[in-house]
Amino acid sequence: MTSNRGVAYIGQGKVEVQNIPYPKLEDPRGRRIDHGVILKVVSTNICGSDQHMVRGRTTAEEGLILGHEITGEVIEAGKDVEMLKIGDLVSVPFNVACGRCRTCKEQHTGVCLTVNPSRAGGAYGYVDMGGWVGGQAEFVMVPYADFNLLRFPDKDQAMSKIRDLTCLSDILPTGYHGAVTAGVGPGSTVYVAGAGPVGLAAAASARLLGAAVVIIGDVNPVRLEHPKRLGYETVDLSLDVSLADQITQILGEPEVDSAVDAVGFEARGHGHAGAQEEAPATVLNSLMEVTRAAGRIGIPGLYVTDDPGAADSAARKGALSVRFGLGWAKSHSFFTGQTPVMKYNRALMQAILWDRIKIAETVGVEVISLDEAPKGYAEFDSGAPKKIVIDPHGMLA
Amino acid sequence: MTSNRGVAYIGQGKVEVQNIPYPKLEDPRGRRIDHGVILKVVSTNICGSDQHMVRGRTTAEEGLILGHEITGEVIEAGKDVEMLKIGDLVSVPFNVACGRCRTCKEQHTGVCLTVNPSRAGGAYGYVDMGGWVGGQAEFVMVPYADFNLLRFPDKDQAMSKIRDLTCLSDILPTGYHGAVTAGVGPGSTVYVAGAGPVGLAAAASARLLGAAVVIIGDVNPVRLEHPKRLGYETVDLSLDVSLADQITQILGEPEVDSAVDAVGFEARGHGHAGAQEEAPATVLNSLMEVTRAAGRIGIPGLYVTDDPGAADSAARKGALSVRFGLGWAKSHSFFTGQTPVMKYNRALMQAILWDRIKIAETVGVEVISLDEAPKGYAEFDSGAPKKIVIDPHGMLA
Amino acid sequence: MTSNRGVAYIGQGKVEVQNIPYPKLEDPRGRRIDHGVILKVVSTNICGSDQHMVRGRTTAEEGLILGHEITGEVIEAGKDVEMLKIGDLVSVPFNVACGRCRTCKEQHTGVCLTVNPSRAGGAYGYVDMGGWVGGQAEFVMVPYADFNLLRFPDKDQAMSKIRDLTCLSDILPTGYHGAVTAGVGPGSTVYVAGAGPVGLAAAASARLLGAAVVIIGDVNPVRLEHPKRLGYETVDLSLDVSLADQITQILGEPEVDSAVDAVGFEARGHGHAGAQEEAPATVLNSLMEVTRAAGRIGIPGLYVTDDPGAADSAARKGALSVRFGLGWAKSHSFFTGQTPVMKYNRALMQAILWDRIKIAETVGVEVISLDEAPKGYAEFDSGAPKKIVIDPHGMLA
Amino acid sequence: MTSNRGVAYIGQGKVEVQNIPYPKLEDPRGRRIDHGVILKVVSTNICGSDQHMVRGRTTAEEGLILGHEITGEVIEAGKDVEMLKIGDLVSVPFNVACGRCRTCKEQHTGVCLTVNPSRAGGAYGYVDMGGWVGGQAEFVMVPYADFNLLRFPDKDQAMSKIRDLTCLSDILPTGYHGAVTAGVGPGSTVYVAGAGPVGLAAAASARLLGAAVVIIGDVNPVRLEHPKRLGYETVDLSLDVSLADQITQILGEPEVDSAVDAVGFEARGHGHAGAQEEAPATVLNSLMEVTRAAGRIGIPGLYVTDDPGAADSAARKGALSVRFGLGWAKSHSFFTGQTPVMKYNRALMQAILWDRIKIAETVGVEVISLDEAPKGYAEFDSGAPKKIVIDPHGMLA
Repeated sequence: MTSNRGVAYIGQGKVEVQNIPYPKLEDPRGRRIDHGVILKVVSTNICGSDQHMVRGRTTAEEGLILGHEITGEVIEAGKDVEMLKIGDLVSVPFNVACGRCRTCKEQHTGVCLTVNPSRAGGAYGYVDMGGWVGGQAEFVMVPYADFNLLRFPDKDQAMSKIRDLTCLSDILPTGYHGAVTAGVGPGSTVYVAGAGPVGLAAAASARLLGAAVVIIGDVNPVRLEHPKRLGYETVDLSLDVSLADQITQILGEPEVDSAVDAVGFEARGHGHAGAQEEAPATVLNSLMEVTRAAGRIGIPGLYVTDDPGAADSAARKGALSVRFGLGWAKSHSFFTGQTPVMKYNRALMQAILWDRIKIAETVGVEVISLDEAPKGYAEFDSGAPKKIVIDPHGMLA
Repeated sequence: MTSNRGVAYIGQGKVEVQNIPYPKLEDPRGRRIDHGVILKVVSTNICGSDQHMVRGRTTAEEGLILGHEITGEVIEAGKDVEMLKIGDLVSVPFNVACGRCRTCKEQHTGVCLTVNPSRAGGAYGYVDMGGWVGGQAEFVMVPYADFNLLRFPDKDQAMSKIRDLTCLSDILPTGYHGAVTAGVGPGSTVYVAGAGPVGLAAAASARLLGAAVVIIGDVNPVRLEHPKRLGYETVDLSLDVSLADQITQILGEPEVDSAVDAVGFEARGHGHAGAQEEAPATVLNSLMEVTRAAGRIGIPGLYVTDDPGAADSAARKGALSVRFGLGWAKSHSFFTGQTPVMKYNRALMQAILWDRIKIAETVGVEVISLDEAPKGYAEFDSGAPKKIVIDPHGMLA
Repeated sequence: MTSNRGVAYIGQGKVEVQNIPYPKLEDPRGRRIDHGVILKVVSTNICGSDQHMVRGRTTAEEGLILGHEITGEVIEAGKDVEMLKIGDLVSVPFNVACGRCRTCKEQHTGVCLTVNPSRAGGAYGYVDMGGWVGGQAEFVMVPYADFNLLRFPDKDQAMSKIRDLTCLSDILPTGYHGAVTAGVGPGSTVYVAGAGPVGLAAAASARLLGAAVVIIGDVNPVRLEHPKRLGYETVDLSLDVSLADQITQILGEPEVDSAVDAVGFEARGHGHAGAQEEAPATVLNSLMEVTRAAGRIGIPGLYVTDDPGAADSAARKGALSVRFGLGWAKSHSFFTGQTPVMKYNRALMQAILWDRIKIAETVGVEVISLDEAPKGYAEFDSGAPKKIVIDPHGMLA
Repeated sequence: MTSNRGVAYIGQGKVEVQNIPYPKLEDPRGRRIDHGVILKVVSTNICGSDQHMVRGRTTAEEGLILGHEITGEVIEAGKDVEMLKIGDLVSVPFNVACGRCRTCKEQHTGVCLTVNPSRAGGAYGYVDMGGWVGGQAEFVMVPYADFNLLRFPDKDQAMSKIRDLTCLSDILPTGYHGAVTAGVGPGSTVYVAGAGPVGLAAAASARLLGAAVVIIGDVNPVRLEHPKRLGYETVDLSLDVSLADQITQILGEPEVDSAVDAVGFEARGHGHAGAQEEAPATVLNSLMEVTRAAGRIGIPGLYVTDDPGAADSAARKGALSVRFGLGWAKSHSFFTGQTPVMKYNRALMQAILWDRIKIAETVGVEVISLDEAPKGYAEFDSGAPKKIVIDPHGMLA
C-alpha cells in the first residue's frame, strides 16, 4: 500500500491522473504530525471552485493535485489520534483547520489562523490555501484528525447512503450556510441565484429549514429543468423579463424574505444580451433589488481578491461595481466567506441518515472512476447539471 | 399657542427660520390621526444627514422644514393615546414608525412599511422619507405616539441631563447600532472610521459595550484632538502612513476585531493627496483590510441609492467600486441601514441616567437658539467638531 | 346583528351556551377603544388550558365566557384602525397585547405590561388575564387590532385551509415555541413529553424545523396511536421501562438534543403505578435526565403560581420538587411562559399556505357547532385525541 | 526539578501541604499524552467550590490534591504541542476539555464528553471530575494544551497585572457567564445574589457589560461593605425588609432586568430568622420574584446532583422546592452549569490588559504562600471577604 494515484492540474483546461506519492503524516512544510490520519478515499467530488483553477482563472501551478471534497476510511492514525479507529468511515470538511486557534475555537473553521502561512483559511488541493495535497486520489492525509473528521456512526448504513453523505464535505454545508446566513427559517420565501450544485444545495437546505417557497434562478434554462421537476419554483434569467417581475408572478409581490448568491464572481448578465457576458456584480445587485427591507443576503458564491482573467482592471483586483446604496436603503446585511463546514456537518449527517433530505438526487450525483476524472472535468465545465463524484477504489458501484 | 417657527431649506447651501403652520394631528396626506401628539420642542439637533440636503446632494425641494432629532414635551394628545400624559418629557426616535407592520413588529423600525408611500422607512423633515414635517421648530407633531415616544421617568432629572438625553433621538443610537452590528463587546479592539458626531458616538458606545480599545480615524487631524483628549486612540488618515501600519503601532497587529463605518458615501481618499477628493468606497475597502477574519463591519454611515452630485456616473446611481473579494476572503459580514432607534434608546437612556456614558461631552454638544440655526448649519458644514443643538424655547440655558 | 351567544363556565365541570352581550369597542374597564375591531367568529378552538378552569383548578368565577383561540372576519373597526378593512379574515393571537409597552416592543407579547392590571400578560376568556371577554361565541371584540391581528392574504384560499389556519391562534405557535426554545433545528433528535394537542403541535413544529427524529411520550398509550401513524416515534410511559431505555431503543443512546415539556403541572407519574397519580415535577425531572449536556428544555406546558386543587401544600403554592442539580450538572437551560404568538404566526401561516405543515391532521381537528360546545368540553376532558374547533356560524361545514 | 508539593484534602475540615509526585505527561488512566504540558504554577486560587469538598459536603476521598484555578509558565511540552513554547505564561481554564468532541466544538467546554468517564465535564483537583490532579501545587500537568491554554501576549506586562489575570481561570469568567446568560447589557438593572467572589465577579462583569446599576445582596452584611465602597448598590438580606422592597428603594420599582444566582445550593433563608439556616431554593425563588417579565436568570452558583450533607432527604438527592409556576407566569428563562471558561477568557484578558476592569480589587485578592494554604482555607471558610491566591514559588511578592 505505498502507491497512490491522483488528479493533477497540468495547465489551462487540462487535468490528468498521475502516479503521486503515498501520503505521509507530515504537514506541507515536512514536519511530522502525529495528529493526522491517512485515509483510503471512498469518494471525492469535483467542485465548481476546482474549475476556477482548471480554467486558468487563478495562479495555481501545474502539478497541483486537486480535490477538497473527500470521504474516506481511516487506514493509519498518528499517535495523538484518540477518538478515531482504523476502519472508521469519515467525512472530511474541505477546510483544513487546527482546532486550536482563536477562529477555530469560535467555530469559524473556514478562516483557521495556523494552517496556511499566507492568509486565514486552508483547504486540500487548492491554490493559496496552505499547500495541503488534494484528495482526488486513492489516498490522502488529513491533519488534526480528531478535530476535523466526522465519523459516521454505522458503516454499513453509511455506505448505503454514500451518494448523499459524500455531499457533506462541501456542497451541502456550503448551500446550507448560504441559507442559514440569509436567515431562512420556517415560512420564509427564498430566492437562490444559480442552479449549479451550490444553488441546488442551498435550495434543498432552505426546504430542510422549513422555507415556504424556494425560487431558483439561472441564465441557463437547461439547468432549471431538474429543480423544476423536484418541485422548486424557477426563474429564467435569459428572458427579457425582470427578475422582480418573475418573482411577482410566483409570490404576488416582487420581494423575497431571504436571498442566496450561489454564483459568485463569474456571474453573467441577465436578459438575452446580458447572459452572453461576464458581469461580476450582477447577482449582488439583483439580490439587493429583490430582497425585502431588513432582509439578509447569504453569499456562499466565491468572490476573489484577484482575478487575473477578468475583463477589466477593477475586476482584476477583485473590485466590483456594487449598488451599495440600494442595500443600505433597505437595511440589508451581507454574509460572505468560505463555509465553516464543521459548524453544520453533524446536523446535516443526521438529516441524511434519518431521510430528511435527498441531496444526491437534488444535485444530480453521478459516480465515475478515477480514470474518468478528466472527462468528468470537461463535462462539468460544459455546464452539465450534475455533481460528479469520483470513486477511486470502485467502492460505490 | 397657534404660531410656530421652523428651519427651512431654501436652496443649495441655505436655510432660514420661517413662520410655519402650527402642527395638526394629521398625517402628510391630511388624514386625522388620533394616535398622534403635539410636542413643544425642548431640543432638536442638527445632523450630518441634514447637511446632505443643504449641500444640494439630494432632490430635497425648497421649503422643506428640517429636523429629525427631537426631544419634547407633550402638550396635546390624540384620543387614542393611552400611555402618555400632557407634560411628559419624551425622546423622539428619528424614524417615523407605525408599530403595526411586519418590520416594526420585528423591531426594524428603520424600515417601517406604512409611513412612507415611496419606500420602506420614514423620518421627520427629510427628503423621500414620507413627508413628515421636521422638528427644528417650536412645535412638531409625532404620530403613533404611544409606540414611538420614549418617556423620561423623572422630568427634573431629565432636564438636568438634557444635553445628553437630546442625543437619544439619533446620534447615540446610530453610533451604538454601528458598534453593536460590528460585534463589539467586552475586550474588543475596535476601529471607527470618521471622527464626526456619529463616529464619536460609535466610539463612546464601543466603550460602554466594554471594548478594550477604540481607535478613531479621520482625514482631518483637527477632529482627532478632542477624542484624543478623552482617551481614545486615533489615526490620522491625512498622513502618508497606511491605516494598517498606524493600527499596528497601537495594537501590535494590523487588524481589529470590529470596524464601524461612520463616514458613508461622502468619503475622501486617504493620504496627503487622497484626502483632497471624494472616493466613496475608500472607507469600505479600508475596513475590509483592517478587520480580522470572521469579523463584522457595522455601517451606520449613509450610502445613497442616487447621488446627483457625485463625480462619476456610477456613483450617481449609488454604485461603488468595492473590493468585495477581499471581504469574502476574510469571511466578513456587513450590516447597513438606518438605525432602528427604538431598539436601543431605552437602554441608552438608562446608561445616561445612571452616569455610565457622557455622550454630550464626547460629541461636543453646543446649544444655540432657533434664530442661530443658519449660523449653526454653516459652522457644522465647515467641519467644526461639535454637535449643534437648537433650543427653540430657551429651556436649556 | 346585536345578539350574541357564547360558552360560559358555570361551575366545576360545567359549561353552557348562553345569550351574551354583543361586543362593544370598549375595554374591560368600560373605556372606548377606537383601536379595536368586532369580529364575526369563523372558528374558535377549545384549549387544554380552558380545561384547567372547567375542572375547577383555578379561581375562575362562574359566568366567565371562555375562548382564546379565535379566527374571525372583521365586521366593524374603530376609527384608529388603519391597516384592516371590513371583510378581512384574520387570526387572533391568544395573547392580548398593546404593542406599545416595553415587553411588546421587544416581541414578548405574552407578557404585555398594560392589558392586565394584576400581572404581566393578557388573554381572552381566561381567569386573571385582564377580563377580556372570550371568543367561544358568535362575535368578539379585539383591541389594538392593527397590532394584534394577522390578516390572511387571500380569503378564499384561507377558507379552504381554515382547519389548519385555526391552529394559528394558539396551539401551533405554542408547540412551535416549545420546539424553538428547545433549540430544535435541522438534524436534531427531539423528545416531546405529552401527546395532547400541544405536544403534537410541538412534534409537527420540530419536523418543520428540520428535526431528524421526533419522539413523543405519553402515559396514555391510546394517545400515541395517531402520531405513530403519522410517522413519529413514540414511547409509552405507562410501561415499567424507563424513558431513557425506550429512547435508547430508538436512537441507540439515552439522550436527545432537545426536549419539550408539553404537559405542565398536571403531570402524572411514569410507570404502571405512577401513571395513576399526579406528580407535578415528573416531566421536568425526566427531561433533565434524557436531555444531553448543554441541551435546552422548552416548557410550553403550563405551570401555575397557585394551584388550589393540588394534592399537597407545596404544590398549592406552585412549588415543585425539582431535581435542579441534575440539570445544573448538565448545563441545561430552561425556557418558560406563555407563547408570544405574534413572533411566529406569520411564518407559520406561510408554512400552512404553501403546504409545508399539515397541522389540522396532526392534532386531529374536529369541527362542532356552538351548541355542541358542552359535549365537546366533556369529550376533550376524557382525553380524546382531538382538537375540537367550534364553528359558531356554520361556515366550516 | 522532580520534586513537587501540593495541597491535599485529608478529611472533613482539613487540608495539608504534602510532597506529591512531579507531574508526568500522562492522563489519569496512565496513558502518555503528547498534547500536554507541564506548568510551573505561578498563581493558584482557592475557590468556594473547593470548600464544598473540604466541608465534607461531597464524596471526595482523602488525599485528593486540590486546585482548579491555575496560572502558570510552560516548562515542558509534549511533541504534539505546536502553538506554545517553553517560557510562555498562560491561564488555565478550570474545565479540562479535549477540543475534539461535539460539545467542545460547540464551545460548551464545561461539559466536554471525553475527559471524564463518569459524566460530562472535567476539572483539575475536583471530586467526580475525571481524576485530573489539582494545581494548588508547585507544578501541574495540563492536557490538550494548545486548545486549553490562553497565552498572555507579553510576559512582563502580564506579571505586572498577575493579581487580575489570575482571576481568568475561573472566578471572573464564572461571574461573567452569570451576567451574560442573565442578558445583562448596556443600561440593564441587575441584581446579583451573593457577595462572595463569584457574586463580586458577576457584579464587575455586569458593569463591564454596560449595566446601568448593579445591586448585590447577601445575608451577611459584613460582606456588603467592600462592594458598597466600590460604588455598587447593596441589599442586606438579614434585615426583615423584603428584597423587593429594598430594590424599590434603589430603583423606584420592585424588579430588575437581569438576575444572577451567585450562591447555589448552600443558600440560607432571608430575614433575621431565615439567615440562620440552609434553605437551598431561597435564592432561585427570590430571583423569580424580583426579575421582570421576560427576564433571564443566570445561575453560576453551584447546584449538586447529590448532597450527602443536606438537611432533608429531597435535598440529599438534589431536589429543591422551586416556585416554578412563578417563573413560568413571568416567562423567565434559566441558565445553569459550569462556565465554559474558554468562551470568555480571551476577551476578559483584553479587558484586564487595557484597564477596563479591576477584578483583583473587586474580589479582594490576597496572596499567600503555599505553606499558608491551610490557614487560607480556614479563613475563607469563615466568610472573609477575600479571594485567596496561592503563590507557590514566591513570584508575586
